[in-house]
Amino acid sequence: MNGNSGNDNDQSAPLGADLLLDSLYDAGARICFANPGTTELSLVSALARDGRMRCVLSLFEGVCTGAADGYARVSGEVPLTLLHLGPGFANGIANLHNARRAGSRIVNLIGDHATWHLEYDAPLTSDIHSLASPVSREVIYLDKPDAIADGVTNAFAATNIAEGGAATIIFPTDVVDAPAPADATALAQVPYSPAPVADAKIESSAKALDEGGDVVVLLGGNALGEAGVRAGGRLAAALGGRLLMEPYPAIVTLGGDLPKVERQAYFPDDVIAQMGESRVVLAGARMPISYFGYEGWPSQLVPEDRLVRLAEPGDDAVAALEALADHFDAKAATAPVAAEDVNSPPADKDVSAASIVEELLVQLPEDSIISLEGSTMGGPWLRNAHRAPKHRVITNTGGAIGQGLPCAVGAALAQPDARIVSLQSDGSAQYTLQSLWTMAREGLKVTIIIAANHRYAILQTELNRAGVPLDDKVVANLTKLDHPRVDWVSLAQGYGVEATYARTNGELAEAMRRGLSLDGPMLIQAELP
Amino acid sequence: MNGNSGNDNDQSAPLGADLLLDSLYDAGARICFANPGTTELSLVSALARDGRMRCVLSLFEGVCTGAADGYARVSGEVPLTLLHLGPGFANGIANLHNARRAGSRIVNLIGDHATWHLEYDAPLTSDIHSLASPVSREVIYLDKPDAIADGVTNAFAATNIAEGGAATIIFPTDVVDAPAPADATALAQVPYSPAPVADAKIESSAKALDEGGDVVVLLGGNALGEAGVRAGGRLAAALGGRLLMEPYPAIVTLGGDLPKVERQAYFPDDVIAQMGESRVVLAGARMPISYFGYEGWPSQLVPEDRLVRLAEPGDDAVAALEALADHFDAKAATAPVAAEDVNSPPADKDVSAASIVEELLVQLPEDSIISLEGSTMGGPWLRNAHRAPKHRVITNTGGAIGQGLPCAVGAALAQPDARIVSLQSDGSAQYTLQSLWTMAREGLKVTIIIAANHRYAILQTELNRAGVPLDDKVVANLTKLDHPRVDWVSLAQGYGVEATYARTNGELAEAMRRGLSLDGPMLIQAELP
Repeated sequence: MNGNSGNDNDQSAPLGADLLLDSLYDAGARICFANPGTTELSLVSALARDGRMRCVLSLFEGVCTGAADGYARVSGEVPLTLLHLGPGFANGIANLHNARRAGSRIVNLIGDHATWHLEYDAPLTSDIHSLASPVSREVIYLDKPDAIADGVTNAFAATNIAEGGAATIIFPTDVVDAPAPADATALAQVPYSPAPVADAKIESSAKALDEGGDVVVLLGGNALGEAGVRAGGRLAAALGGRLLMEPYPAIVTLGGDLPKVERQAYFPDDVIAQMGESRVVLAGARMPISYFGYEGWPSQLVPEDRLVRLAEPGDDAVAALEALADHFDAKAATAPVAAEDVNSPPADKDVSAASIVEELLVQLPEDSIISLEGSTMGGPWLRNAHRAPKHRVITNTGGAIGQGLPCAVGAALAQPDARIVSLQSDGSAQYTLQSLWTMAREGLKVTIIIAANHRYAILQTELNRAGVPLDDKVVANLTKLDHPRVDWVSLAQGYGVEATYARTNGELAEAMRRGLSLDGPMLIQAELP
Repeated sequence: MNGNSGNDNDQSAPLGADLLLDSLYDAGARICFANPGTTELSLVSALARDGRMRCVLSLFEGVCTGAADGYARVSGEVPLTLLHLGPGFANGIANLHNARRAGSRIVNLIGDHATWHLEYDAPLTSDIHSLASPVSREVIYLDKPDAIADGVTNAFAATNIAEGGAATIIFPTDVVDAPAPADATALAQVPYSPAPVADAKIESSAKALDEGGDVVVLLGGNALGEAGVRAGGRLAAALGGRLLMEPYPAIVTLGGDLPKVERQAYFPDDVIAQMGESRVVLAGARMPISYFGYEGWPSQLVPEDRLVRLAEPGDDAVAALEALADHFDAKAATAPVAAEDVNSPPADKDVSAASIVEELLVQLPEDSIISLEGSTMGGPWLRNAHRAPKHRVITNTGGAIGQGLPCAVGAALAQPDARIVSLQSDGSAQYTLQSLWTMAREGLKVTIIIAANHRYAILQTELNRAGVPLDDKVVANLTKLDHPRVDWVSLAQGYGVEATYARTNGELAEAMRRGLSLDGPMLIQAELP
């Protein structure tokens, strides 16, 4: 009458679910972002029997996948998600899309109907493979207990392909309810490491740069970490060039005594102007392309003959940069700490994106992690990040909005000692606002600043560019969020998160001081003009 | 420099986007549930130029698709959704899964990158076809302006297949920004009608039933409407049998002077007991199967030789039932209105699922529509619906939770004169709570009753059945939602929806009176034990 009744196992005889869990643990998984349903309950029981895996519940699957992404980016380890059948998984796809673009290594677990039940096309049956493929390096269906251990091995191996990514394991209930094969062996961990760049490639890059002329060093992949930024800075300084980063880094280290890193622009015309006639060294970055295709502008924004392809996103761009910098006898030039003063904006003035940045420059603790989502704060922060203490910034890699709050959850769990600041547009925050509940539940040190302008600003920017009048009734109806205005303080309190408004810079400074001192989450609704 | 700059069109020369919109309008679409992004802005501009299509904005795509589903179920017409690329669409898949199970006719519109931009694999590029296929009768890619009119025709035709469903149109920006072909002609509407049941099938059904014995008439498809319930009731009465409905009807008419309809049970053992040795007449319903597969229980719950396959889900089950009832000389037996009294529960007692039902039986206006989601209120209401005035009930057809609130949005827009009551579990309400904002924005007459038990009750039921202890730390962590308890009143107010708590039956009665009298939404958080 229950899932195991056919087996009559005593507690000592492990089931498929136990083997699955053991294999995942052996492969290195230590945390599971879960929103399970009925077909996942055998694994839930195994998690209960085992007790080693940390389980973090969220109220919506997009929170689970976004949190897994944030966790993977900060820790470099492989978190699990546990989601319910095709539709539950589907709710997590948007943030897995971002994770794919970030090269985040994640293993998704989906319970499926019993193999013998599938043909009856029960209400929750769907084509899980078709749904999961676009966001998975591999989709693995465990068709029998003997497939479990190999399936987990293959999943972890798939997360190591190129710059990394997610793998998805589908486990039918009858397979995990069956006795585990007796001969299953423990897995060895398969750590990820970027591919070394061949000497020949470094030499040809050096040769191309020997010719002189303007140079841009464009950072991406593992070159976005501290070592890469320093190596890139050395190289750029030695060549008299500029140091840039790809427009949406998965996680980048900025500020402190690190060299200033300029961000690649957004619109194609701006990128073309920014790159000028420079040769562009791709150091783990993809070549500059247009985010969207605009009639009259090319997709590829730097011609092939000006690209110096040093390292692909999955390559060890750090070592390649260091080798190339050595070639040019670049000095270990620690960039000077910015001399500019950092001061609180006038307390009695209204808050703005600029004043949020200025106040955060004053208050941000060293080694914080900023989860940054939306154009309202994205540009302003990244233009000023070099003036802050050393910190890391997570950005929205894939453009699927609703990443910022869940990534903050994952970042906080990956690094509990760090302060997480979620610099967040209000429009995109709506897609996964249930993150607030998990922050409260887990007592995460996340300070959320909602830049509340009550509109889809990016759409208005694009419409403006296309010459469409923003005050047209239909256009306004689809881009303004002011009937009614969302009260984020009320939403946060509904989820048990302390919250307050900031209308002036003084209110902002006070709220930020409180938020950054709390051993738990707090939300500040900054009311922008 | 903008999307149209290459064309230099004056206002009188229609673009592909105008043709797309005209075609959709001509085919019968009158409402668009939208959450657009940059690649949909050309269509947004066309919507602005045109002005005929009602656009309803939501803050999350799952609200759009669930609202479209609710609209389609109530109106029988074809609503549109407008969603952003693969990831935006993915957020709408869960409710499209439910719509698929409901046979709801919907046309999804997804803007895609320009055809010439796709190969550059920009951040938002994904395999939209793979994502959309599992929830679409057809996925249509408009590869050139000449494909627009036929594409729309084919999409609407696809929604008519079998019992109906969704079709998905992918439109690249360059295709809709190009001039429309001059020779495009207006489309004829292609109304949906269920397939007539062959006389031979009715005769063979009659013959099978002539043999006597216990009979269950199982309603599904179009037999869930008033005419079908009456015809089913006539037939069941004539045969001395029972009248049942499939467990998760898309939309069923109940109460008033309609015959009582028993709901097919959930667990396989309960269904087997419920069906006994009866012959089961499938009148638009699928054959009874187990919702999930349980070891030791069959998937198919009524053996083939006891099934009388009168009408498939896409058939005209109403006409078939009427013909069969005539065959048995069934009288137009209007079932007696239930003699039972309906009374408010004791005002000073705590609210419970049962007391919510009793109070709603007292207050529900005739011809209301109830959007019912979750096991907490689902069983209690459907066991008592025959005691209410005539009303319709929408249930969760596909098991993808987060359907109830969006379906209420769509129902309210489809039938603005009706009162919509959202009888909603708290766990499932979380997946699409952004619906509340659209309710406030559009001033919808939706009265939401959140049955707040702060747990995933269905999971606890299943775990109990499987003998897993609910008080285990890991199990409790993944099934209880009480650290912290969500404050739905605060969430609703954050979205501009009036809200109140109901802890006693007296508070519930008062809140319900106010909610049902408002010309807009109101949320009642009923605190259950």
